[in-house]
Amino acid sequence: MAPHMAEWDEKEMFPVETMRKAAQLGFGGIYVQPDVGGSGLSRLDTSVIFEALSTGCVSTTAYISIHNMCAWMIDTFGNTEQRERFCPDLCSMEKFASYCLTEPGSGSDAASLLTTAQLKGDHYILNGSKAFISGGGDTDVYVVMCRTGGKGPKGISCLVVEKGTPGLSFGKKEKKVGWNSQPTRAVILEDCAVPVTNRLGEEGQGFNIAMKGLNGGRINIASCSLGAAHACVQLARDHLLVRKQFGETLSNNQFLQFKLAEMATKLVASRLIVREAATALQENRSDASSLCAMAKLFATDECFNICNQALQMHGGYGYLKDYAVQQFVRDIRVHQILEGTNEVMRMIVSRNLLTES
Amino acid sequence: MAPHMAEWDEKEMFPVETMRKAAQLGFGGIYVQPDVGGSGLSRLDTSVIFEALSTGCVSTTAYISIHNMCAWMIDTFGNTEQRERFCPDLCSMEKFASYCLTEPGSGSDAASLLTTAQLKGDHYILNGSKAFISGGGDTDVYVVMCRTGGKGPKGISCLVVEKGTPGLSFGKKEKKVGWNSQPTRAVILEDCAVPVTNRLGEEGQGFNIAMKGLNGGRINIASCSLGAAHACVQLARDHLLVRKQFGETLSNNQFLQFKLAEMATKLVASRLIVREAATALQENRSDASSLCAMAKLFATDECFNICNQALQMHGGYGYLKDYAVQQFVRDIRVHQILEGTNEVMRMIVSRNLLTES
Amino acid sequence: MAPHMAEWDEKEMFPVETMRKAAQLGFGGIYVQPDVGGSGLSRLDTSVIFEALSTGCVSTTAYISIHNMCAWMIDTFGNTEQRERFCPDLCSMEKFASYCLTEPGSGSDAASLLTTAQLKGDHYILNGSKAFISGGGDTDVYVVMCRTGGKGPKGISCLVVEKGTPGLSFGKKEKKVGWNSQPTRAVILEDCAVPVTNRLGEEGQGFNIAMKGLNGGRINIASCSLGAAHACVQLARDHLLVRKQFGETLSNNQFLQFKLAEMATKLVASRLIVREAATALQENRSDASSLCAMAKLFATDECFNICNQALQMHGGYGYLKDYAVQQFVRDIRVHQILEGTNEVMRMIVSRNLLTES
Amino acid sequence: MAPHMAEWDEKEMFPVETMRKAAQLGFGGIYVQPDVGGSGLSRLDTSVIFEALSTGCVSTTAYISIHNMCAWMIDTFGNTEQRERFCPDLCSMEKFASYCLTEPGSGSDAASLLTTAQLKGDHYILNGSKAFISGGGDTDVYVVMCRTGGKGPKGISCLVVEKGTPGLSFGKKEKKVGWNSQPTRAVILEDCAVPVTNRLGEEGQGFNIAMKGLNGGRINIASCSLGAAHACVQLARDHLLVRKQFGETLSNNQFLQFKLAEMATKLVASRLIVREAATALQENRSDASSLCAMAKLFATDECFNICNQALQMHGGYGYLKDYAVQQFVRDIRVHQILEGTNEVMRMIVSRNLLTES
Repeated sequence: MAPHMAEWDEKEMFPVETMRKAAQLGFGGIYVQPDVGGSGLSRLDTSVIFEALSTGCVSTTAYISIHNMCAWMIDTFGNTEQRERFCPDLCSMEKFASYCLTEPGSGSDAASLLTTAQLKGDHYILNGSKAFISGGGDTDVYVVMCRTGGKGPKGISCLVVEKGTPGLSFGKKEKKVGWNSQPTRAVILEDCAVPVTNRLGEEGQGFNIAMKGLNGGRINIASCSLGAAHACVQLARDHLLVRKQFGETLSNNQFLQFKLAEMATKLVASRLIVREAATALQENRSDASSLCAMAKLFATDECFNICNQALQMHGGYGYLKDYAVQQFVRDIRVHQILEGTNEVMRMIVSRNLLTES
Repeated sequence: MAPHMAEWDEKEMFPVETMRKAAQLGFGGIYVQPDVGGSGLSRLDTSVIFEALSTGCVSTTAYISIHNMCAWMIDTFGNTEQRERFCPDLCSMEKFASYCLTEPGSGSDAASLLTTAQLKGDHYILNGSKAFISGGGDTDVYVVMCRTGGKGPKGISCLVVEKGTPGLSFGKKEKKVGWNSQPTRAVILEDCAVPVTNRLGEEGQGFNIAMKGLNGGRINIASCSLGAAHACVQLARDHLLVRKQFGETLSNNQFLQFKLAEMATKLVASRLIVREAATALQENRSDASSLCAMAKLFATDECFNICNQALQMHGGYGYLKDYAVQQFVRDIRVHQILEGTNEVMRMIVSRNLLTES
Repeated sequence: MAPHMAEWDEKEMFPVETMRKAAQLGFGGIYVQPDVGGSGLSRLDTSVIFEALSTGCVSTTAYISIHNMCAWMIDTFGNTEQRERFCPDLCSMEKFASYCLTEPGSGSDAASLLTTAQLKGDHYILNGSKAFISGGGDTDVYVVMCRTGGKGPKGISCLVVEKGTPGLSFGKKEKKVGWNSQPTRAVILEDCAVPVTNRLGEEGQGFNIAMKGLNGGRINIASCSLGAAHACVQLARDHLLVRKQFGETLSNNQFLQFKLAEMATKLVASRLIVREAATALQENRSDASSLCAMAKLFATDECFNICNQALQMHGGYGYLKDYAVQQFVRDIRVHQILEGTNEVMRMIVSRNLLTES
Repeated sequence: MAPHMAEWDEKEMFPVETMRKAAQLGFGGIYVQPDVGGSGLSRLDTSVIFEALSTGCVSTTAYISIHNMCAWMIDTFGNTEQRERFCPDLCSMEKFASYCLTEPGSGSDAASLLTTAQLKGDHYILNGSKAFISGGGDTDVYVVMCRTGGKGPKGISCLVVEKGTPGLSFGKKEKKVGWNSQPTRAVILEDCAVPVTNRLGEEGQGFNIAMKGLNGGRINIASCSLGAAHACVQLARDHLLVRKQFGETLSNNQFLQFKLAEMATKLVASRLIVREAATALQENRSDASSLCAMAKLFATDECFNICNQALQMHGGYGYLKDYAVQQFVRDIRVHQILEGTNEVMRMIVSRNLLTES
């Protein structure tokens, strides 16, 4: 993907064909079970794959990771019919998926979402709107959290809404700092009738499904930050080795040498905590949730700093779109915000710390 | 300017008419002497003005500040004829100026520049190229550092090259992370004949002129960072006061309150050091050079962090181009790099510290 | 004081005679009015003096600054009789003063203090205990905040308790990380009868008096941090210039050069914000309270980092008590905690930011 | 050890008996081979043990770790006779060992050491002095790096010098910021005759032996920082849960909650990188040296910050010697300096980064 990342960014192209090629390698449903087309790999494998892919294009990889999360949610919480209906097309990326949790008025506080799903016969009638939806408008399958019951997390259910359903429409394509190879739009639901058979799990299980999905989502997005930071350390190193100032290469500057050492060190620490979280999640350890939050907080913060420092090492060139380093900085900036802001990560970690016996 | 900054950024417009209106208020030659059309204000006044303007548009203000630096160089180092020939049109912004020091192979190490100016009769024949020139191609007057003598800083002279001179051409317009309301191009000199009467000061004085200009330039660019940070603290505060999560406004979140307090505190400290440097430069104090470097280092680093933190406080909205905060982040990122990178600022400060008696 | 600071630290000596010599120079009541023996200087003068003194010994200077705050409180809020009775002896340091606000259960939350003062005839009967009292046990005059009325700040009054009053006793001398040249003890009040004529201001004014005193106290303590940081930058610089490693002095190490530049830059910024706050307080500006909190937060945090980095630059020598740098680190660590923790400073600053129109 | 750490610190006691009890548990030669009394455990086991022990007393554990490093050096580079002569007594801590590399004039630049060892018959005659020797004067076996050949690392050999050897004497006991349960003295060698049979390995191998020892030493010392940070996170958490301010426990303060989350996150990252380095060293991986340097740099820096933040959370109590948190801060401060300063760690990491193909 690396040769294309600048073009996809500039032209805001959603690289459907490239992603389908990735799906042929098994990347459309990495941790989906094989009987419905998935690769059946572990969370750790998944992290390693997303890290590698994002050295080529963070934005595209991040979308793929969201797609995978959706596929996994259907695979895990869907019944046999649902799994067989949706998963094979998602794993092959014949169809693309979007995750619809956030609303204009509920970001970090997901449990307060307002989109309603009223049961009428064998359909739910959905009304509401979802914000910041990755892939929104260009994708086929929307995994939507909506309120079938009372206030709070227990009133939330999870429905799969398919493109083309009457009442499903989309907002304007958002202009963003980065993540430009994936379209972001609001998803608008106006008297949108969705069959009850599209509900994943029971009524009221939606928030639980959303949170379980997000544990993996956090590792995935943190893995994308790892790839960006890895690429930027390489770019910075290569730049220091060839760029001359004051009669010698920048690599002879002790200050820059030491900064590079700090960057590499923090990258290693970031990678280790992401992989530890992936392992904990795979093993369903009791500290998995905390570790996923820690990994997302630590890795997305540190990797942003690494990339931003790599930009600085490029001098004026780092500010030009001809050089990849600035795109990595722009693309991963949003990782500190989404899948739960890093402030929410601190909340999760501290809550666990202060309540454990 | 504030209502236009997003449009100028998106469409990469150089707002010539708006700048000319600013010039009518005296902002084309703020610290140029009044007899040639300048406003004759102090460095401190200048800093306050650029800080205020950049709350409206950093990129445009930053260009104005470079234009001012050029006008000041001609005013200060030019003879009567040169002052009268160039300054009035620059002060009114009838004509625009560009500062040409950096070359593709010499950024921080300006004294190693390679552009040559060979004396032939009453003209210098210039050959070489200048990189990252703000306004390059769209401006009228180029203040060019070039080599008339031997190696090192003492071989450098300063020439004014006017647009339209045969042999003067421009590279492609660069695509940048920010600073999009000002065009950036390479300036190419091929057997470009410039009259000896366009030389500012004596032969060999060029590096000295360049450095003197940069002392002021550093305060100016740091002042632009102050304006951005000031605007972002306001934007963040306003966002916290209205955005609700978990049933109350974000302004009730202690973590965010305390972060906002840190941002405001660092903004005050940044402002004080910039103004102290401006005063020192105005008074020609012996520590002026060090203070200008300190002010640029401190203020551009801290203000970037402030703006970046303000973006974080906006959550997902901070990543959208509909919101101004992200443009401030993109625009001021380059302030840590240009007018001498912040690494060079550390070099200047430490050299003074370690050699003073 | 510099030649003695290590000895005073090791032997935990309260240098009474040295302080009386300082008082002869006018340092016992720097911002106390001249008619009762004070020097009548400004807050800015005071800050400069404490900065200078603390390069010699932070701990002793910090005590002197607390003594000055007490003398100022009596000078400002006392009546003529009280001013004449207490101030001359305090200004000459014939007598020493202690400030008694904090209690074991109320640190940051001073308004919740529990020490009671019950009016009985022309005396108040005090009961309660005060914690972390600088000078406690070795000083003569205790400015005590106590509750004469109901809950909250409005129930608090300010009494001067003299050593020797029956019912006034002291806890054990605390063992501390630094600040060893001043004794710290609990102050215990058991049916301690204090004449009503020792009350400063009206009943219920105590909290207001305490807070006004603390505005100045915060500048003072921040000034002591400045002195420490200034001394440490000098010590680090001198060490780098003589210590050789790898065949050259450490001052040739670019990383250390640049770190030194950062330290010096942050010291300048710290000094400027402290002096700005001192000026604002002197001029009774409406932003004085905020600026005092900002100055205390910024300067005590940054100066600790500067001193700690200077220790690092000394290598193994920095860890030995033979070298002064470690004492500066130990002594100023507490400045981030007392006179309101730096967390409370953030609270004050953010409250002002979020409520201003 | 926890109940004694304050007393050992205050009275500067070397807890010989306690350490011998630890040796009965196998902690005198954790990674020494069993045939000479060692426990034969892995580097990872060793790290876990030192982390656990140092929650009780950092200073004592750190000494034990140095003792272990010496025992391992004799076990690994000694011949059969040497292993059998020295290791059993070291593993049982019947005898204690000190590591003698640093000299007054060569800290980070160990290869420039000046202590000479001149061969005379079957003895080396040693002259020179060693600085900052842990255990110096109170221990029995000194593993000394000295120069048997020309300049540079290849002229260095490693000799075991036993207490009581004529010509071996000690400087005064150093007064330190922490690490007070282990004595630190200079080791002075004046015409000190050491049998050739006490040489570990061949002539010229000394520097290599020293560096190999230090790889493990760095993991060990970083492990001691982990233990301190772990203890401090617990202490801070417990303090937050009981200390009340403003009518509720500090644990309800969001700012402190989030800081605690950051501390815990950085502790996990620190632990992971230390254990990764231990595994790499155990497996003799080619990146082991780099990882040991990264682990030492990252963990000792972050853990100091964690402990220092925990002190801040204790408010005024954190500054009193009655509370353990301040001792952890004082004790681990030196970990950023010794076994190669963290500046040297950056040098090692960057050298590997910039030279790898």
